[in-house]
Amino acid sequence: MIPIDASSGFECPIPAEDGERILLGHGSGGKLTSRLIQSIFRKYLNSAELAQGNDAAVTAIPPGFSRIAVTTDSHVVKPLFYPGGDIGRLAVSGTVNDLLTSGAVPYALSVSFILEEGLEIRLLECVLQSMQATASEAGVIINTADTKVVERGKCDGMYITTSGIGWVNDDFAPAGDRAEVGDSVLISGRIAVHGIAVMCARGELGFQANVRSDNAPLTELVSRLRDQVPSVHVLRDPTRGGLATTLNEIAAQSQVTIALEEAAIPVDEEAGQLCELLGFDPLWVANEGKMIVIVPAADAEKALQVIRASRYGEDAAMIGKVVERNPLAGVTLRNVYGTHRIIDALPGEMLPRIC
Amino acid sequence: MIPIDASSGFECPIPAEDGERILLGHGSGGKLTSRLIQSIFRKYLNSAELAQGNDAAVTAIPPGFSRIAVTTDSHVVKPLFYPGGDIGRLAVSGTVNDLLTSGAVPYALSVSFILEEGLEIRLLECVLQSMQATASEAGVIINTADTKVVERGKCDGMYITTSGIGWVNDDFAPAGDRAEVGDSVLISGRIAVHGIAVMCARGELGFQANVRSDNAPLTELVSRLRDQVPSVHVLRDPTRGGLATTLNEIAAQSQVTIALEEAAIPVDEEAGQLCELLGFDPLWVANEGKMIVIVPAADAEKALQVIRASRYGEDAAMIGKVVERNPLAGVTLRNVYGTHRIIDALPGEMLPRIC
Repeated sequence: MIPIDASSGFECPIPAEDGERILLGHGSGGKLTSRLIQSIFRKYLNSAELAQGNDAAVTAIPPGFSRIAVTTDSHVVKPLFYPGGDIGRLAVSGTVNDLLTSGAVPYALSVSFILEEGLEIRLLECVLQSMQATASEAGVIINTADTKVVERGKCDGMYITTSGIGWVNDDFAPAGDRAEVGDSVLISGRIAVHGIAVMCARGELGFQANVRSDNAPLTELVSRLRDQVPSVHVLRDPTRGGLATTLNEIAAQSQVTIALEEAAIPVDEEAGQLCELLGFDPLWVANEGKMIVIVPAADAEKALQVIRASRYGEDAAMIGKVVERNPLAGVTLRNVYGTHRIIDALPGEMLPRIC
Repeated sequence: MIPIDASSGFECPIPAEDGERILLGHGSGGKLTSRLIQSIFRKYLNSAELAQGNDAAVTAIPPGFSRIAVTTDSHVVKPLFYPGGDIGRLAVSGTVNDLLTSGAVPYALSVSFILEEGLEIRLLECVLQSMQATASEAGVIINTADTKVVERGKCDGMYITTSGIGWVNDDFAPAGDRAEVGDSVLISGRIAVHGIAVMCARGELGFQANVRSDNAPLTELVSRLRDQVPSVHVLRDPTRGGLATTLNEIAAQSQVTIALEEAAIPVDEEAGQLCELLGFDPLWVANEGKMIVIVPAADAEKALQVIRASRYGEDAAMIGKVVERNPLAGVTLRNVYGTHRIIDALPGEMLPRIC
């Protein structure tokens, strides 16, 4: 057990004995690429589609679905491993959660790696193991993949791009422009964890913290909502830019004002204290395992119970309301003293490379 | 008209006046990201799905198709612009061609950008313009996108990952494991152009050359085959690793021996001369606008005529045959003197970062 990156506390379970590293030739498309695929990728990623080795994976469209959801995201998080997660878990969770926001049943992910020459292959193995474990948890397969290698200093270990497809039917169709006046706004758990966990893992703060990332796939939570509260209007995961930015996006798409109650917003205790210390507002800190759920008021209590009964949803809370139609759109926050203020989208950069 | 990269001879048509550059904040997910999307991405990439601004694009599955094809590729070509193409045209063409190899009707691409802090925004604009033009030529839409920004020195200008989906029906189902003894092997044009064009563009050779990349989407060529020669057994684009490596992959998937006639293989004249000078074999040089077509002998002449009548197919040729079932698989080449030799997959690296 050798620590790879002392700042993140990560210990790679694969021994460093052989110390094999990525070479430029692993990206050639020739024999070295083929050997990397056979001996490393296939060891961890396994699906019938991937094993066929064609340039495109072909899958039957299941009966009962009339539409398909597609999403893509590149992941450049730094460091690659941090308390509670790693770039592999982040990539799979993020893409699955994006599919879920459209009401889709996530089906498959394609994965493309950009690797830096010199990367220890056992680190790649740890990431692949984590990706397959997270994919299994999320109920998706990895159906096609690609690998490129760039010279030392032209990447930062590895970047991973995941794209996902999922099946959609007409009974459950949440979308960003469907928030309506009177709707209740729910959040599935305590915010501000992921951004703070990643920042702490960089070891630049000069102190230790115990915040662990929330990166997780929310398949179970959303599939319970699909079954029990199909009236849900909007689902959106508040990642980069945090809760405040994501709610502003929804407000703009739906042309409404969303009013939040500060006291109702669940913030992770330690992450909240660190935010205070560092001068951040938890409302703008990234989350990677939370879902905003906007639902007609009549179904809000039921939705809350369904979320709380789901994995990763136990701390869910009702945090506000859609209060008026407003072509200028916006988000307001009422603090504990009853004062209202406008909550804007994140203006510039807060923490680069948190996802 | 200011040359950006003298070695590639590329001239960016967008004036350098404002000199605006990518900032880390453009990857924050906040207001700067939103401004980049609104003012730059939307100017060039336009589809109804993209304009909706949801985390996942949702599309109706067209009637008559029972399956879906999915593919993904990261692109790290260096330089970003080279004679005959650029990273944007390469990414769109490569992904479309991979979809075509499965017999799919290409429908949509998702695009994810990793941008380096300090990149001139007008270079991004040139790439976006080229992507949209190539997508239009290929008959696909760009339905969803993502942007991340990394610090100076952690990327090389930009990396682009494209994933594609296409619709498949049961009437046309080429696959790598369907080559049969007696089949004819065709190539859609002169090989060895892309790899040599990119290498020359790096300006490291000490001389000028006029080789232009063949990067192009082969939608028209394959859709004519689908309509007129649906008996096609295998389609595969010989990119990284060249014709030799790709044929070895097919031979291994189908467990056959493929026998090539050296004299029949069309090689671009100037690229061939440069290969001789540099000690490369054109058989292992990457192509980005060629298709290997393996078809029952009875339909080979017809397939050749159909390809020659298509855009990018005028120099197509019949280059060999599938000669025997062989669990060890392999590719042989008979030269002009009648001698046979074994043609292996590319062993290591030849030209890094050609796609």
